[in-house]
Amino acid sequence: MSKDIVQIFDTTLRDGEQVPGCKLDMDQKLVIAERLDLLGVNIIEAGFPVSSPGDFKSVEAIAKLVKNATVCGLTRAVRKDIEVAAEALKHAKTPRIHTGIGTSDSHIKYKFNSNRDAIIERAVAAVSYAKTFVEDVEFYAEDAGRTDNEFLARVCEAVIKAGATVLNIPDTTGYCLPEEYGGKIKYLKENVKGIEKAILSCHCHNDLGLATANSIAGVMNGARQIECTINGIGERAGNTSLEEVVMIMRQHPDLNLDTTINSKLLYDTSKMVSNKMGMMVQPNKAIVGANAFAHSSGIHQDGVIKNRETYEIMDPSDVGVTESSIVLTARSGRAALAYRAKIVGYELTKTQLDTVYEEFLAYADSKKEVKDEDIHQIVETSKIDLQRIS
Amino acid sequence: MSKDIVQIFDTTLRDGEQVPGCKLDMDQKLVIAERLDLLGVNIIEAGFPVSSPGDFKSVEAIAKLVKNATVCGLTRAVRKDIEVAAEALKHAKTPRIHTGIGTSDSHIKYKFNSNRDAIIERAVAAVSYAKTFVEDVEFYAEDAGRTDNEFLARVCEAVIKAGATVLNIPDTTGYCLPEEYGGKIKYLKENVKGIEKAILSCHCHNDLGLATANSIAGVMNGARQIECTINGIGERAGNTSLEEVVMIMRQHPDLNLDTTINSKLLYDTSKMVSNKMGMMVQPNKAIVGANAFAHSSGIHQDGVIKNRETYEIMDPSDVGVTESSIVLTARSGRAALAYRAKIVGYELTKTQLDTVYEEFLAYADSKKEVKDEDIHQIVETSKIDLQRIS
Repeated sequence: MSKDIVQIFDTTLRDGEQVPGCKLDMDQKLVIAERLDLLGVNIIEAGFPVSSPGDFKSVEAIAKLVKNATVCGLTRAVRKDIEVAAEALKHAKTPRIHTGIGTSDSHIKYKFNSNRDAIIERAVAAVSYAKTFVEDVEFYAEDAGRTDNEFLARVCEAVIKAGATVLNIPDTTGYCLPEEYGGKIKYLKENVKGIEKAILSCHCHNDLGLATANSIAGVMNGARQIECTINGIGERAGNTSLEEVVMIMRQHPDLNLDTTINSKLLYDTSKMVSNKMGMMVQPNKAIVGANAFAHSSGIHQDGVIKNRETYEIMDPSDVGVTESSIVLTARSGRAALAYRAKIVGYELTKTQLDTVYEEFLAYADSKKEVKDEDIHQIVETSKIDLQRIS
Repeated sequence: MSKDIVQIFDTTLRDGEQVPGCKLDMDQKLVIAERLDLLGVNIIEAGFPVSSPGDFKSVEAIAKLVKNATVCGLTRAVRKDIEVAAEALKHAKTPRIHTGIGTSDSHIKYKFNSNRDAIIERAVAAVSYAKTFVEDVEFYAEDAGRTDNEFLARVCEAVIKAGATVLNIPDTTGYCLPEEYGGKIKYLKENVKGIEKAILSCHCHNDLGLATANSIAGVMNGARQIECTINGIGERAGNTSLEEVVMIMRQHPDLNLDTTINSKLLYDTSKMVSNKMGMMVQPNKAIVGANAFAHSSGIHQDGVIKNRETYEIMDPSDVGVTESSIVLTARSGRAALAYRAKIVGYELTKTQLDTVYEEFLAYADSKKEVKDEDIHQIVETSKIDLQRIS
């Protein structure tokens, strides 16, 4: 059975770029957009055209540049926003307008001072108006995570009738648990008339550390698009990490889901975005962190050396990392020491290794990390009788 | 109904400290251990005593220092390891020995060159021997995530009979999906004879970005201990983040679960560990990242100003963050500009705001972030007729 493709909707340049300190100039945005296209994302959300003149120009330039992906612009459910977005997108090969409105009681009351029926009217009006400019119209039900399912289904049904091709169900505040978010998608899949005409999309935030799990719960329950960013950047604790959801689907063939992403470009793309935005990636970030494939404890290193799969579920080269680095610390065991010692030129017998290991431990206790050059000094201090290999 | 307490087992000083570059000296470890005790963690895994003389001394010193938490030392299923750990822990008020062995086919075959029955024998022997030194013995079934449930249940049953008080079910490679990991805990809860005598513990790794979700799936299915680290540090992509699981349980009262953690100390503890280990936390890290409570887009800022709960699910002060920072960028709307302008001293009329906002957008397009001092310049350039408030 061939796998279902989950569309990857990258919002690094919109939800990601609106982060304090992450603002890019147009040239930087174009370089990133080109790379995202090469990476194989299906939709690039390029910006929020009405929000500033600079944003308008960037969306316009990206629309002209991108060869494969759909280029998308964000709007509120406001005519002017939609007109400006359509104008910015007019040169795109495949344009998409992304419009929507808050649907939770909290948003309806405090943000819009409105009521449910009026919100549905505005939603339908926005989608219908966007359809006069482009074929592909995505609707977001802001704060869907806290919108009750029955009302959310009514909103979805209405905007599908108005021509929405994609329904974005954002957990705007990052509050949902995976079971709850997956249940919401399942409810919509089962209760919205005409749902087969539209794609359900997951847009999750990471305030509680659950964006990735929620998105996966979404696609396991029938969603076929994930909105995400490189390195999981985005407002507050960020969005779903593109690299994580892509690799989960790739590593779990039983899900029978895949994407069009060329995973070998993930690591370089992560570094590019991190450098251009000045937004660092912590070493323990899944998939793309500097330590993501590093083993340092003795038990683990021993296992990896005997058989990589003992501790590694992914081949680092699949995400563009060229080697699994074995880093020596005071927690490293004899096997790791022997392994690195051999790489730098010493083949040690078991007795020799015992002696050098004692020396190594004393040395390592005073150092954060034992580098290859330190090994020469340790071996020398051990005064064992040996020849370097080469 | 009073909430069930989930034990927080902190392994920052063991699984966290074995990360490349994170090695601490003994004084640093003692300061962190004291802070963890103050934070309210239930168990501090202080180290792996047999692994190096430095580690032994640190565990010994932490055991003497800690007033409230149980102090735990890691061992392999090896008599010498257990003896050394018992010695290191002898001054602890409540000591725990954490012993175990790999139980997945991959570990049994490649790491131990053994078979299932022999592994159970070694497991039982290790727990029985540890029980001769301490009352509280935790058993880990390494690579439980890839161990088949039926065999895992046999192992659990055998070690409970031998006196194990806690059963640690590690997803060592960070491979499980939440449904799968939760299902494993449920299976054990339902199929292990004598399971009521022991606590099931979640120990998840973050290789696919799912450690937090897996741990929560675990406690939703009957586990009552989570093994975690401050900032989610640990080998490769790290361990479960303590701050995330604690706040999920606190923010989701329906789970009917809680911890003994004083959440107001989370932010400072995060900074302390990050500084001492030289292990930076990315700005978009959930709960403790620099941006975790920052709002910058116009739509969001407007919402937060109208009603904080529109976009915030947590009160930042609950985790020790003193204010939700409203940062101005080119994406910020009029409301955010008006809000900050008022703070720095300008009360703008609607017409004035329109004029200043135009100026602001032109200015913001060339800047990553508009600081309070920039606002004065923007207002001045706008040449509107006003008086500063104070």
